[in-house]
Amino acid sequence: MGKRARRSRFEKKRTLPGSSPGTMAPQPGAPKPAIHVVTFGPDAIEETAAENAAAIRSRMGRSPVTWVRVEGVGDPATIESIGALFDFHRLSLADVVNVPQRPKGEDYGDTFFLVLQMPRSAEAATTGLELAQVCVFVGPAWVVTFQSCPDHLFAPVLERLRDSRGRLRTSGADYLAYVLVDCVIDSYFPLLEAYGDRLEALENEVIAGSTDSLATTLHDVKHDLFVVRRVLWPHREALTAWLRDDSPALTKTTRVHLRDAVDHVNQLVDLAEAHYDFGAGLMTLHQAFLQQKTNEIMKVLTMLSSVFIPLTFIVGVYGMNFDPDSSPWNMPELRWRWGYPAVLVGMGVIVLGMRVYFGRKGWIGKGRTEGTNSRGRG
Amino acid sequence: MGKRARRSRFEKKRTLPGSSPGTMAPQPGAPKPAIHVVTFGPDAIEETAAENAAAIRSRMGRSPVTWVRVEGVGDPATIESIGALFDFHRLSLADVVNVPQRPKGEDYGDTFFLVLQMPRSAEAATTGLELAQVCVFVGPAWVVTFQSCPDHLFAPVLERLRDSRGRLRTSGADYLAYVLVDCVIDSYFPLLEAYGDRLEALENEVIAGSTDSLATTLHDVKHDLFVVRRVLWPHREALTAWLRDDSPALTKTTRVHLRDAVDHVNQLVDLAEAHYDFGAGLMTLHQAFLQQKTNEIMKVLTMLSSVFIPLTFIVGVYGMNFDPDSSPWNMPELRWRWGYPAVLVGMGVIVLGMRVYFGRKGWIGKGRTEGTNSRGRG
Amino acid sequence: MGKRARRSRFEKKRTLPGSSPGTMAPQPGAPKPAIHVVTFGPDAIEETAAENAAAIRSRMGRSPVTWVRVEGVGDPATIESIGALFDFHRLSLADVVNVPQRPKGEDYGDTFFLVLQMPRSAEAATTGLELAQVCVFVGPAWVVTFQSCPDHLFAPVLERLRDSRGRLRTSGADYLAYVLVDCVIDSYFPLLEAYGDRLEALENEVIAGSTDSLATTLHDVKHDLFVVRRVLWPHREALTAWLRDDSPALTKTTRVHLRDAVDHVNQLVDLAEAHYDFGAGLMTLHQAFLQQKTNEIMKVLTMLSSVFIPLTFIVGVYGMNFDPDSSPWNMPELRWRWGYPAVLVGMGVIVLGMRVYFGRKGWIGKGRTEGTNSRGRG
Amino acid sequence: MGKRARRSRFEKKRTLPGSSPGTMAPQPGAPKPAIHVVTFGPDAIEETAAENAAAIRSRMGRSPVTWVRVEGVGDPATIESIGALFDFHRLSLADVVNVPQRPKGEDYGDTFFLVLQMPRSAEAATTGLELAQVCVFVGPAWVVTFQSCPDHLFAPVLERLRDSRGRLRTSGADYLAYVLVDCVIDSYFPLLEAYGDRLEALENEVIAGSTDSLATTLHDVKHDLFVVRRVLWPHREALTAWLRDDSPALTKTTRVHLRDAVDHVNQLVDLAEAHYDFGAGLMTLHQAFLQQKTNEIMKVLTMLSSVFIPLTFIVGVYGMNFDPDSSPWNMPELRWRWGYPAVLVGMGVIVLGMRVYFGRKGWIGKGRTEGTNSRGRG
Amino acid sequence: MGKRARRSRFEKKRTLPGSSPGTMAPQPGAPKPAIHVVTFGPDAIEETAAENAAAIRSRMGRSPVTWVRVEGVGDPATIESIGALFDFHRLSLADVVNVPQRPKGEDYGDTFFLVLQMPRSAEAATTGLELAQVCVFVGPAWVVTFQSCPDHLFAPVLERLRDSRGRLRTSGADYLAYVLVDCVIDSYFPLLEAYGDRLEALENEVIAGSTDSLATTLHDVKHDLFVVRRVLWPHREALTAWLRDDSPALTKTTRVHLRDAVDHVNQLVDLAEAHYDFGAGLMTLHQAFLQQKTNEIMKVLTMLSSVFIPLTFIVGVYGMNFDPDSSPWNMPELRWRWGYPAVLVGMGVIVLGMRVYFGRKGWIGKGRTEGTNSRGRG
Repeated sequence: MGKRARRSRFEKKRTLPGSSPGTMAPQPGAPKPAIHVVTFGPDAIEETAAENAAAIRSRMGRSPVTWVRVEGVGDPATIESIGALFDFHRLSLADVVNVPQRPKGEDYGDTFFLVLQMPRSAEAATTGLELAQVCVFVGPAWVVTFQSCPDHLFAPVLERLRDSRGRLRTSGADYLAYVLVDCVIDSYFPLLEAYGDRLEALENEVIAGSTDSLATTLHDVKHDLFVVRRVLWPHREALTAWLRDDSPALTKTTRVHLRDAVDHVNQLVDLAEAHYDFGAGLMTLHQAFLQQKTNEIMKVLTMLSSVFIPLTFIVGVYGMNFDPDSSPWNMPELRWRWGYPAVLVGMGVIVLGMRVYFGRKGWIGKGRTEGTNSRGRG
Repeated sequence: MGKRARRSRFEKKRTLPGSSPGTMAPQPGAPKPAIHVVTFGPDAIEETAAENAAAIRSRMGRSPVTWVRVEGVGDPATIESIGALFDFHRLSLADVVNVPQRPKGEDYGDTFFLVLQMPRSAEAATTGLELAQVCVFVGPAWVVTFQSCPDHLFAPVLERLRDSRGRLRTSGADYLAYVLVDCVIDSYFPLLEAYGDRLEALENEVIAGSTDSLATTLHDVKHDLFVVRRVLWPHREALTAWLRDDSPALTKTTRVHLRDAVDHVNQLVDLAEAHYDFGAGLMTLHQAFLQQKTNEIMKVLTMLSSVFIPLTFIVGVYGMNFDPDSSPWNMPELRWRWGYPAVLVGMGVIVLGMRVYFGRKGWIGKGRTEGTNSRGRG
Repeated sequence: MGKRARRSRFEKKRTLPGSSPGTMAPQPGAPKPAIHVVTFGPDAIEETAAENAAAIRSRMGRSPVTWVRVEGVGDPATIESIGALFDFHRLSLADVVNVPQRPKGEDYGDTFFLVLQMPRSAEAATTGLELAQVCVFVGPAWVVTFQSCPDHLFAPVLERLRDSRGRLRTSGADYLAYVLVDCVIDSYFPLLEAYGDRLEALENEVIAGSTDSLATTLHDVKHDLFVVRRVLWPHREALTAWLRDDSPALTKTTRVHLRDAVDHVNQLVDLAEAHYDFGAGLMTLHQAFLQQKTNEIMKVLTMLSSVFIPLTFIVGVYGMNFDPDSSPWNMPELRWRWGYPAVLVGMGVIVLGMRVYFGRKGWIGKGRTEGTNSRGRG
Repeated sequence: MGKRARRSRFEKKRTLPGSSPGTMAPQPGAPKPAIHVVTFGPDAIEETAAENAAAIRSRMGRSPVTWVRVEGVGDPATIESIGALFDFHRLSLADVVNVPQRPKGEDYGDTFFLVLQMPRSAEAATTGLELAQVCVFVGPAWVVTFQSCPDHLFAPVLERLRDSRGRLRTSGADYLAYVLVDCVIDSYFPLLEAYGDRLEALENEVIAGSTDSLATTLHDVKHDLFVVRRVLWPHREALTAWLRDDSPALTKTTRVHLRDAVDHVNQLVDLAEAHYDFGAGLMTLHQAFLQQKTNEIMKVLTMLSSVFIPLTFIVGVYGMNFDPDSSPWNMPELRWRWGYPAVLVGMGVIVLGMRVYFGRKGWIGKGRTEGTNSRGRG
Repeated sequence: MGKRARRSRFEKKRTLPGSSPGTMAPQPGAPKPAIHVVTFGPDAIEETAAENAAAIRSRMGRSPVTWVRVEGVGDPATIESIGALFDFHRLSLADVVNVPQRPKGEDYGDTFFLVLQMPRSAEAATTGLELAQVCVFVGPAWVVTFQSCPDHLFAPVLERLRDSRGRLRTSGADYLAYVLVDCVIDSYFPLLEAYGDRLEALENEVIAGSTDSLATTLHDVKHDLFVVRRVLWPHREALTAWLRDDSPALTKTTRVHLRDAVDHVNQLVDLAEAHYDFGAGLMTLHQAFLQQKTNEIMKVLTMLSSVFIPLTFIVGVYGMNFDPDSSPWNMPELRWRWGYPAVLVGMGVIVLGMRVYFGRKGWIGKGRTEGTNSRGRG
């Protein structure tokens, strides 16, 4: 899945440059639309599936608020027929179909149009980031949402509608739209929490000195967080654009709640940046540990060489074939009674001397394992 | 504590996405609220604990100013009942309970609502950063504060109230609120000082070449400072929002003092950034020292090898078993009278030559220890 | 091609400093202008090639909209004569000829003048980035475009004009201009997608540890993305300047579409930045892998040395020529019955001991190959 | 001095959080105030020391302009009595005593209050950065300055007053205040010049390959420059705030001069940033040189080993004790007439071959010393 | 020249802090002013040298436009006398003399004052960046320029004046001033082109792996580009300030041209940033290559050691002096008929085995030379 997930981050099938504006080019393999119509008022709620735009029309106007939920945008014809029913601007319909679009809010008089991006799953931290595009059209007595994937993204909202809890059933379409937007925004909290957990796990791996595929994973997570931050940012503008919309359809209550949602976006951007900084710091940490590991390996090699290279030299000396018979100066020690033991003792002294030297240099007895009892660990 | 402290930085239990706005979801294990009511005027001050909202109500209105201090937000029911008493907006109550929130200021007509973050302890530099959320509601004749932890965060303000020092007892609720905000802001000064001390200690460790868990600690401190800076920043907006509030309840005196508090926030942000930059610089320094250490280890190895490898070759030569009897050209030196001493002298000359070579390369006599008498040390 | 492509990024033949403003200095070797005139209305479309400005004049005014397309700007005289026909400002004509110019939009009363940069080919990711300059003059009933290269940049627009699809044939000159601008902007999408593919390929190479010319290629791609981002940025200002133009010639429909084009620029800038960040992360990753490779090489060397250096020392010991006849202490083991086998066994024990030591250090059995089954790979 | 200097950068004794706003908490050991009163007009100038506020009062109003200069802020009582005399706001007095404060300008109606930071000495580049806080109160006919250290910071201004040069004696208090501010700002020029010299010296050290405490010093200087930049920045806001003050007390002439001072601040910020960038570049350069040094050391080791390891192997071969008597295949060369010379020649050939190989790899004859004749050196 | 050039970048002799504003302190050794007066109208042009301000005055007013060109600002007295003649503000005269100043534009009613910085030579990329300060005073019928060096900076403008080409002779002083400003701005184009060439050359050196003084040169060039960018930036403000000047003396034509000059500054800033990014990328590339070089050196050492260390051990074994006479277990192979050949063959097998092992590890046959056939090279 990972591989596919990253691919979807980079690739984007779009209309060809120069094609007519408003041309719809759904991603190949995009799911076909499934239309759900929810009509509700303070007293009743009714949920039905609709086959086509005509089926929607027959359901309109009977309850105070109608919510048309379209899951999947893979069939331009259906999207267009729905658009015709509600009189949506062609360009906004193209935005619905040609995913992904940058989050934005646009005012079309009676209708306000929002493009949002929502994480498909909080598991993204381990499986790779996948975003679903959610488009919301807010009208006087209806909300139409299009989502690019067939997931049950709005299940909790539906639950609340059914339970008749809170003010949702008694408020207008604008409040429903706010609740949907809030659901999209808040879905980033568990996502960033999951990335936080992932970063902590990675930190432990970095400290444990694991070097397997750590750098690659860190790079992935860091880039994901970069993308999350960049995706979150324009949500703020989108919501602020909606707040600027001074139509009476947007009630004061909804405005107060919307400002709260803007606060959430700000908080999420802060969080994403802090996570990104943490990830970048981990990369630096990892590199420091790699360098430290090089040092350790070098130290083992150097200590070993330092001890044995002189010793090998000494035994080499006494392996020379100078003929003691030819001259009294030719290695007479080879025939001394204590020659061999003396050489052994001499080599032992050298080993001890090296040990002291390395001890003074701090190369012995300062392993990594002792260093873990500092702040923040254990 | 360290581990738990970092965990709290990343994890955040919140309401599920899609749940009703204003849903209260206190952190599991959050302390239950303890309510303290302080009523005072120029002449008298009275402090009592209150069991519930009704107890608060009975204490209201008898003195010029009432300060309701709620320590712990772990019980939504209590928070709601207090909110009902003062007619707080549901969303702001949710902000009180669902910690942490981003610092902000919001104007609800008669009431001004502030969310602030306060360091729980200046020891954070060694134990890990922990923030307590402080919410302040300022009304015409009362201040209600909620704090997410049971610490005595406002002990010094209480002290000043009791002592009847300064203008606190004779001023209105807005001035009390300012004093509380000022107490929150100023608590960052000892925090950043502690980080400054920590950074200095770390700098000494870096220079001393200690490599144990230095990189990890540096990474921790650096990230803490990043978080502090990001948390401080929105406090400015919050206070500025309050300053923009043109209700007559905010007196000119308090405004002047508030501007002073904004100055403090600016100064703190500057400080946090300077500390962060210092920490980042230390990381670079640490890496340079690691690289330098590699060089030193390599140098020891190289010098040792350079001296002994040629010598070992030479003794190897004279260890060859060419038969001097077979040919006058077969290592006749093995039977020379001065053969062995000559080889020893030759090897001594090589050692001296290497010494001179390394001296010229600057590899000998330029240890790290001499380098510490530069600017800023000693 | 690569080499030439980069060169064109840095070099820029311009008018000499101090020369008269409006001096035209085409790039040496710039293609000569080829003039195409397209006139159309709802019912008819006519395409002809024009030799010179006079030929253009004869074609003007007979259809609702005239589009003069000039491919190549290598001949100042021709450009000037066209400029004289439409009364273009001399400075804007200089901008047409003296490529490259920074994208911008300028209002000359009746005429709006746009400078745009368009990627010549989406293959840039592998062949090097090459931009073509497109200048658009929008008048009341005509559009004049100049492009710095003879490529068929606007082929798809022409196709749409011929097919009489969409509203293009029935709209005015402003809409045609928008469609051309949209074509330029949207051509960055396949370009960035190609860079995305290239980055993915590079990521795989980094992970595969290929170090051949990877760093160089990464550097190239990263810089290209930097340039793309910087080139895209001013397009926003250019389009916004056009939107600010409140002449009635710019219809409401075109305005709505233009805002959509601005959205596209925003999205492209986001994409370019995310790609750039990804490229920068790859560079860091590459460096981490290089360091890791150093470690691996060192590890092989250290393990080998650690095993053989002690063994070589031992065999050296028994190669010493101490005379067992001279003293019972002189290596009596050389004459023991089991001396040689004992030494062999002793050395075997040392090898096994080293194996255990390295196993504990985690140097054996943790190769890179095992590390690839983490998130995002496989 | 170095150590103490850095300490002062991080530590800051302040009022405890929660203490009354306006509480004065001078730094322990802060010098006691010494009060100097200078009164002057076009014709006369009089300088006296004042014991206390009463002594100041007796000197006021007799000359067109009075300048009260308070050196040292270690005694809150004295500061308060002076504040009472001139009716300064309590918060601004607290800013005077509680050093350091962020530079700022505040309008108190008749009085304008400026907090500035001034380098105590241009030697900071070698001794560590130390800032003195200068507070300036500008009234209709007087200027009161407080400085946190007893240095003769304003000696040159006093000199100019005495010499009756320029327009200083004939202008009002606002012009005197400007001259003092200008003196503070301009004192950063020699400071930054000194840092520039220091950076050049460090650059030479980096290029010379000195690695002693270079990294530490670079880190220090870089951080100092960061702090200088951050301290300079708010001076701009402070001066701009003063310029916005539309009281008639601020003459047009002084305004023109103030704008010049703002230009200076801009220039200084530019300079500090360029220096900081240069320092950061030096750090990178230093790291590149460290890596290069590792390479060089490695190269020496590798070349040495490459030459001697094969040779040692060869001599080892002929040190084997195969018995030529047992078999004609057992090292017959040991008894050849030219065996030994042939081996020596063979080894010579190997040495030459290695020399050629290293020469081709470019490892010989490309030392660092040759590389210094590039741009910008020599 | 290099050394001196950098020095001039850091050092700045200025008036002492605290000296009178408007004090003139020319750089020691600054060239003495040489005054050239050019008067022209549509019909005639006259060029003369002037000794002093009086000589200028005698030439004024006889032609529509007078251009006073002062080359060198080393003599304050002369500058002051010219300033007195045209009634320049003392502070602007100080800016003229006390080079370098930050680029800026200031409106003094009738006169507009511009400070600009101009590269002295496009060769800066190799010789070090040197800037000349150009100050332009624009009056109703005259332009006065001061330049800090005696170079013929405006030779091409003079040429155009003499040739009577374009509208220069027929336009007013404002247009002449624009042409001069344009000449200054456009002189950055060849400068940046030269830096582009230099960066390309450096890139080739980096790829060729030359490590001599590459890092130092890169550091120099990178810093130069940083400085160029910082110097260019305020030019924009300066020109914009001039555009805001709504005096009738600034004609509409000149305004249009000025906007074009602002475009050029924007383009130059873009270019400088792209170059800086390229340089920074090269530094990273260089470091990656250094690390790669370390790897290569290590690889050679490791392969060599891996082959010979085991072999040396084996020959060491057969150099042991165990006495075959004492025991049948004591190295009987020394007396075998095929003992020696068998050992030689065994060692050959080991060498081949290592060869295969290294081949599998990819250490053999993947040299740098093969890697150059990627994008952008060859």
